[in-house]
Amino acid sequence: MTMKLTTDPSAATLLPIAKKEGISTVWDRHRAMQPQCGFGQLGVCCRICWKGPCRIDPFGDGPQRGICGADADTIVARNVIRMIAAGAAGHSEHGRHVALALQGVAEGRLPAYQIRDEAKLRAVAAKLDICTEGQDIAAIAAAVAKATLEDFQNQDHDAPCNWIEATLTKKRLERLQALHVLPHNIDAVITQIMGRTLVGCDADPVNLILGGIKGALADFDGMCLATELSDALFGTPSPVITAANLGVIKPDAVNIAVHGHNPLLSEVVCEVAGQMDEEARKAGAKDGINIVGICCTGNEVMVRHGIPLAANYLSQELALVTGAVDAMVVDVQCIMPSVSEIGACFHTAVITTMAENKIPGATHVDFKEETALENARRIVATAIEAYKRRDPRRVNIPDFKQTAIVGFGVESVVGALATLNAEDPLQPLIENIANGNIRGIALFAGCNSTQVAQDSSFVTMAKKLAANNVLMLATGCGAGSFAKHGLMTQEATLEYAGDSLKAVLTAIGTSAGLNGPLPLVLHMGSCVDNSRAVQVAVAVADKLGVDLDQLPLVASAPEAMSEKAVAIGTWSVALGIPTHLGTMPQVTGSAKVTELLTQTAKDLLGGYFLVELDPALAADKLLEVIEERRKGLGI
Amino acid sequence: MTMKLTTDPSAATLLPIAKKEGISTVWDRHRAMQPQCGFGQLGVCCRICWKGPCRIDPFGDGPQRGICGADADTIVARNVIRMIAAGAAGHSEHGRHVALALQGVAEGRLPAYQIRDEAKLRAVAAKLDICTEGQDIAAIAAAVAKATLEDFQNQDHDAPCNWIEATLTKKRLERLQALHVLPHNIDAVITQIMGRTLVGCDADPVNLILGGIKGALADFDGMCLATELSDALFGTPSPVITAANLGVIKPDAVNIAVHGHNPLLSEVVCEVAGQMDEEARKAGAKDGINIVGICCTGNEVMVRHGIPLAANYLSQELALVTGAVDAMVVDVQCIMPSVSEIGACFHTAVITTMAENKIPGATHVDFKEETALENARRIVATAIEAYKRRDPRRVNIPDFKQTAIVGFGVESVVGALATLNAEDPLQPLIENIANGNIRGIALFAGCNSTQVAQDSSFVTMAKKLAANNVLMLATGCGAGSFAKHGLMTQEATLEYAGDSLKAVLTAIGTSAGLNGPLPLVLHMGSCVDNSRAVQVAVAVADKLGVDLDQLPLVASAPEAMSEKAVAIGTWSVALGIPTHLGTMPQVTGSAKVTELLTQTAKDLLGGYFLVELDPALAADKLLEVIEERRKGLGI
Repeated sequence: MTMKLTTDPSAATLLPIAKKEGISTVWDRHRAMQPQCGFGQLGVCCRICWKGPCRIDPFGDGPQRGICGADADTIVARNVIRMIAAGAAGHSEHGRHVALALQGVAEGRLPAYQIRDEAKLRAVAAKLDICTEGQDIAAIAAAVAKATLEDFQNQDHDAPCNWIEATLTKKRLERLQALHVLPHNIDAVITQIMGRTLVGCDADPVNLILGGIKGALADFDGMCLATELSDALFGTPSPVITAANLGVIKPDAVNIAVHGHNPLLSEVVCEVAGQMDEEARKAGAKDGINIVGICCTGNEVMVRHGIPLAANYLSQELALVTGAVDAMVVDVQCIMPSVSEIGACFHTAVITTMAENKIPGATHVDFKEETALENARRIVATAIEAYKRRDPRRVNIPDFKQTAIVGFGVESVVGALATLNAEDPLQPLIENIANGNIRGIALFAGCNSTQVAQDSSFVTMAKKLAANNVLMLATGCGAGSFAKHGLMTQEATLEYAGDSLKAVLTAIGTSAGLNGPLPLVLHMGSCVDNSRAVQVAVAVADKLGVDLDQLPLVASAPEAMSEKAVAIGTWSVALGIPTHLGTMPQVTGSAKVTELLTQTAKDLLGGYFLVELDPALAADKLLEVIEERRKGLGI
Repeated sequence: MTMKLTTDPSAATLLPIAKKEGISTVWDRHRAMQPQCGFGQLGVCCRICWKGPCRIDPFGDGPQRGICGADADTIVARNVIRMIAAGAAGHSEHGRHVALALQGVAEGRLPAYQIRDEAKLRAVAAKLDICTEGQDIAAIAAAVAKATLEDFQNQDHDAPCNWIEATLTKKRLERLQALHVLPHNIDAVITQIMGRTLVGCDADPVNLILGGIKGALADFDGMCLATELSDALFGTPSPVITAANLGVIKPDAVNIAVHGHNPLLSEVVCEVAGQMDEEARKAGAKDGINIVGICCTGNEVMVRHGIPLAANYLSQELALVTGAVDAMVVDVQCIMPSVSEIGACFHTAVITTMAENKIPGATHVDFKEETALENARRIVATAIEAYKRRDPRRVNIPDFKQTAIVGFGVESVVGALATLNAEDPLQPLIENIANGNIRGIALFAGCNSTQVAQDSSFVTMAKKLAANNVLMLATGCGAGSFAKHGLMTQEATLEYAGDSLKAVLTAIGTSAGLNGPLPLVLHMGSCVDNSRAVQVAVAVADKLGVDLDQLPLVASAPEAMSEKAVAIGTWSVALGIPTHLGTMPQVTGSAKVTELLTQTAKDLLGGYFLVELDPALAADKLLEVIEERRKGLGI
């Protein structure tokens, strides 16, 4: 029974305990919600005005138009592009937050932060065409922050955002420009989507979807800047060995779970925790303070500092059910509101930190960059206090954790390749793709969803693609899945990679000093870090003189759920990448929108959505796509 | 039967014709949609991630939390603030469009536009603290446009938007600042709402609603700037006598219906139509070109130029059923997608003009400010061509129209009052409120909805309030209702106003040269022009040294439907105004949110929502509120 809900082995330990304790989890709520509303699943429910709600009869017997006259195509298109707007909003709020912090650092206003990776900041400045000659690092930071904030301020509709313009291939930019889908201002494009989907506005499904694509590209812009500026502030990831799954929680430590997305919070909590370790020991925790990560905050601190990952999205509640998490510190996104209630069943302090993201029942510590160290000390002190209340008899830490080699940013991938060819680092990768040792590249991203047994689609697909010599990158909860299931190890490469992929990964890993192959799946970071994979792809495309839609590159979100995943998937398609969804997108009530996204998009953009709920079949289909792309390149 | 759907007399003529022709109207679609989804009506349906849709059982037997753990309070709050974000997006896109046009005029790039009201522009500049001394009008326009666009660009969260800061009372600004709900940037606040309502973000209903209030105040900011800058470009309304209802369509003219919201389109169409009148006559239309308005575009050209109003929201389709509309030219918002299909049943050219607002089946003429005259000529030529195809046997123009005296902007209200007291124009108004001749002021705004027999609630309430000596202002489809039903006439004042109100309106009207009283309801313009009423209220409050929540001032949206109305109603509450809703807001699935909006808001803001579906009872309740406010002021 349990194994149908999740394939995470720690759940087998903890779900019965949750049940015994009367704690309802995400899976219980999923079950209770069945059957779910079919109109909503098809995308044909419209709630954008108070004449409604309206819904289109999918069988054709009942209403075919809403009260205003909108048909299923219009309703579905409006609904899905509002999801894209929301996703773009989430990522770009995160990005703006980091950009404003960079500005604050440049102005010397934020003692808790500094530019930890000056080389990265200089590289970013160069990319944005900012002259750095003779400028000190603060001046460069100020100029980069200014150029970045322009992407939230520009009012000239014909001038594309700075970051997207600096990031994509020339051909791709031209193609997107010709379709009028290049964003000029992230916020303005989100506003435009909300405005055009009001009652009585845009009713043309094609026009609406193109508007949504522009919103998705605004999302991409926000992700690029969030990733790169975070690297400048907190360091660019490099390979590090750590561990994943709930077994990383330590019985004799003050366990602080950092959960959410934005490194501005978690970085300072990690730093302060190091300083307060002695206080934890004094409180009786002989192993001091143990920070563990959940969701994308977890990925951020994992790829930069090797902090172990406790859980991805669906098992965040189970982290609390261990009874050994003393504080769960959250910022924004993917935080189940249930955590405050579950925390209260134990001794756990659930601490919200952002003014715009509170949870009833949680402790709120208003976290501001200006007072970050002080705020973080209060958070860590709260955790130590909670630890003193922990009931050891209620502690159940599952004995499951897996080693994970993580931290493959663009720089470290290129760095590893450079050990084979210092002058032309991409050459070994391109050569191995061309000669077929690597058939293609797959980027795994996106969430967990209760619509799929947790992690199962990620793992099934990865094993099949690996056997067929596909190089795999991962971010977000996808990366969490692979880490928890031991696919970010050298052993996994030896066990699951096809012979030629294994040889390549071994050659690179050995040359890069790893004493063996690279892990089977390369962990690139959090979900905003999907932009890293695009950077690698753009570098390869530029070197070959082709566009992204010619590369044997695919993306997959086998367990997609969040509106952020809708935005990411859509920009992936817009960049020319065939993009697999393993959960049913809520658009199928419109044949026109479905066709647009899964077929017409191919002609317009080169990329398209490929929906396949069966993970083994999905892997087969992606392999076919890769072979088709190879054929197109004549390799 | 018909009279249960609408109280507009022209519908009695046209609905049977629509039926005979097999044309389905908004009322047919409403009937076909029954019963509507109760979860949606209560606001407890959540579609913000693909784990869902989820819905909370309002009877308490089924699920009380969505799959992520969000309860009814969280779900309802998220849904309603996304509606506010959408409403704010619509108004602010409109406002930005006008601001960019002003910038274009300042730069000499837009030959079709000029500053028609320099005095207004100077007044705006003064209000925004822009130094105009020694500056020519282009420089002032540039400075005003720049300060306005800052409201879409500012990244300092602590610096409120320029327009809101220049518009409200000092006390109100302090109160809003203390609640952290003053917006700093319209677009950023919309993005913030979309971001905080993502899965796993803000789950605190109070915090969410405060975020929504900030969004609503951003909406207010956008409306203020849209209204005032439109006045500068196109002239400030002054009283003009015109007519309303479908009888304004002329059998022997080329009838062009301008429909939507933004005067940038309709102003140029009106101007070009004047130049092309002869062409229409040559095509056989002996009355030349007849422009008629629909919805808020109709209100914009009505209050500025006395263009007659053909229809408000619900009867837009019936305008086409007359068979005598040769072109319906639309821009943005409140345009039923059904119009293209109905236009095609006749000879009517339905012409969309905005790149982000298309309708399948309509003719699209891409309207750009740079080429406005040329675009407008093409539109008018298309109408003349269509006229030639008109089938006179299918023409059915209802013999209903009413005189309407419209065009009461702040300046004309103050101007009329100045004829009584040139030195202190507000004194006569304040004196008559203080002595009880005028008991209070009511602003009617908002839409039509199929949930209410069209126009009936507006008319019922207005007659009752008038008899009780309440001075009434109106905008949007509310103003359209009153105009169509003859309540914007001097006769209506004589017939329906209570004795003391009648005396005051007669004194002002006579003194202002109208040879009789002011009309019973003062038409202030389109729905963005609700900001005009606030300006009057702020002037009165400032003069009395009180805040807006002390004035005997109420607002009512008896037939609210659009997300824009949700935004407007919410800022009305935030400004301290008791605000009546005559349709059921989709929030009642949460007792907490309902209490917040209808009760707690009173303590926080002074304003609050008052929901009453029965218009006669609603009028009684507003009268009670007015008396309570009078008591508070000791008058």
